[in-house]
Amino acid sequence: MSGYFITFEGGEGAGKTSILHSLQDKIANLGYDVVTTREPGGIEIAEKIRNIILDPTHTTMDGRTEALLYAAARRQHLVEKVLPALENGNIVLCDRFIDSSLAYQGHARGLGMDEVFSVNQFAIQECMPDLTLFFDIEPKKGLQRIAANKDRERNRLDLENIHFHEKVYEAYQQLVKKFPARIKTIDADQKLEKVETDSLEKITSYLKK
Amino acid sequence: MSGYFITFEGGEGAGKTSILHSLQDKIANLGYDVVTTREPGGIEIAEKIRNIILDPTHTTMDGRTEALLYAAARRQHLVEKVLPALENGNIVLCDRFIDSSLAYQGHARGLGMDEVFSVNQFAIQECMPDLTLFFDIEPKKGLQRIAANKDRERNRLDLENIHFHEKVYEAYQQLVKKFPARIKTIDADQKLEKVETDSLEKITSYLKK
Repeated sequence: MSGYFITFEGGEGAGKTSILHSLQDKIANLGYDVVTTREPGGIEIAEKIRNIILDPTHTTMDGRTEALLYAAARRQHLVEKVLPALENGNIVLCDRFIDSSLAYQGHARGLGMDEVFSVNQFAIQECMPDLTLFFDIEPKKGLQRIAANKDRERNRLDLENIHFHEKVYEAYQQLVKKFPARIKTIDADQKLEKVETDSLEKITSYLKK
Repeated sequence: MSGYFITFEGGEGAGKTSILHSLQDKIANLGYDVVTTREPGGIEIAEKIRNIILDPTHTTMDGRTEALLYAAARRQHLVEKVLPALENGNIVLCDRFIDSSLAYQGHARGLGMDEVFSVNQFAIQECMPDLTLFFDIEPKKGLQRIAANKDRERNRLDLENIHFHEKVYEAYQQLVKKFPARIKTIDADQKLEKVETDSLEKITSYLKK
């Protein structure tokens, strides 16, 4: 495997998706081949799994079912899209990965971060991200940003209350402490341009190593 | 939990499904409340997951994705159907459960029985079957029975070759040795009436304990 696997993480409204797309060209301009993706990444099997997870009518879905489905979709996306891109020497920028499951299902749903980590290890085997950017913004502010965006479609997870999103935030802070070499925090409560510059700086200083 | 959870296991064409249905009334006649089920058991979410697993067009499906999807469907079926029935004091007869994943994905697909067991423990927590009947028939004979049944719909797993089914059989034999208190072997290479009598005998002698 000769590429680099970089994941973007954070709560709702942290702006990670916009930043990821704006960085694509900037990193390519430095001479790297860049692939951007997000789970389920247009992989047919993974898309179908995600549809089951996010269907708002699935009100009886158990938290453990949800965690297993995310791990299944992750596996298929990894095998069909991420690994081939890494093997071709690309830099893969991926919107959400294992840390999202640890934060959302492991901590916020109370299943246990260690237990969810172990299920995800089965899914990803040794393929942990090389670098992870955590976009740090208070849940309240993130949710305000989302509420202001009228175009955004709402799904089953958007229906969770502020307490849930605070737990997610708490989990990300724990993960930053647990994996200091891998996860770098970006202050996302700044102007978009500044968040972008900070993110690019973290990535380039990693790539120079 | 006051009921009993009894699972029926074995390779293709072992006859376990027919036996399960014929035993339902016989056990009920002994004065027990009996619920028969099979994964995904008519649970909407689990049915949708199973459709993804068995879709013959999903030729790129990775073995680990498959194992995680089975565990997800198992969890939802357990929570929505099996556990409520057990809590109501029923005897639940379930066609296939965790041992199928250990045999098919763990051993035959080569993912490792221990690894698949650990993912399934996340799914089922403490809810292992009280009793498991293994319907023992040589894979070749089982597949001949299936081939003779023209009404049976073929799915993605039926497309596997004899070598795959021999690995499944090998795995079940290992499981019988590993869990001698839980798993009882039934000689399925006999007349249906005899297989039925043997199965009923194993179940009633368990229930008397």
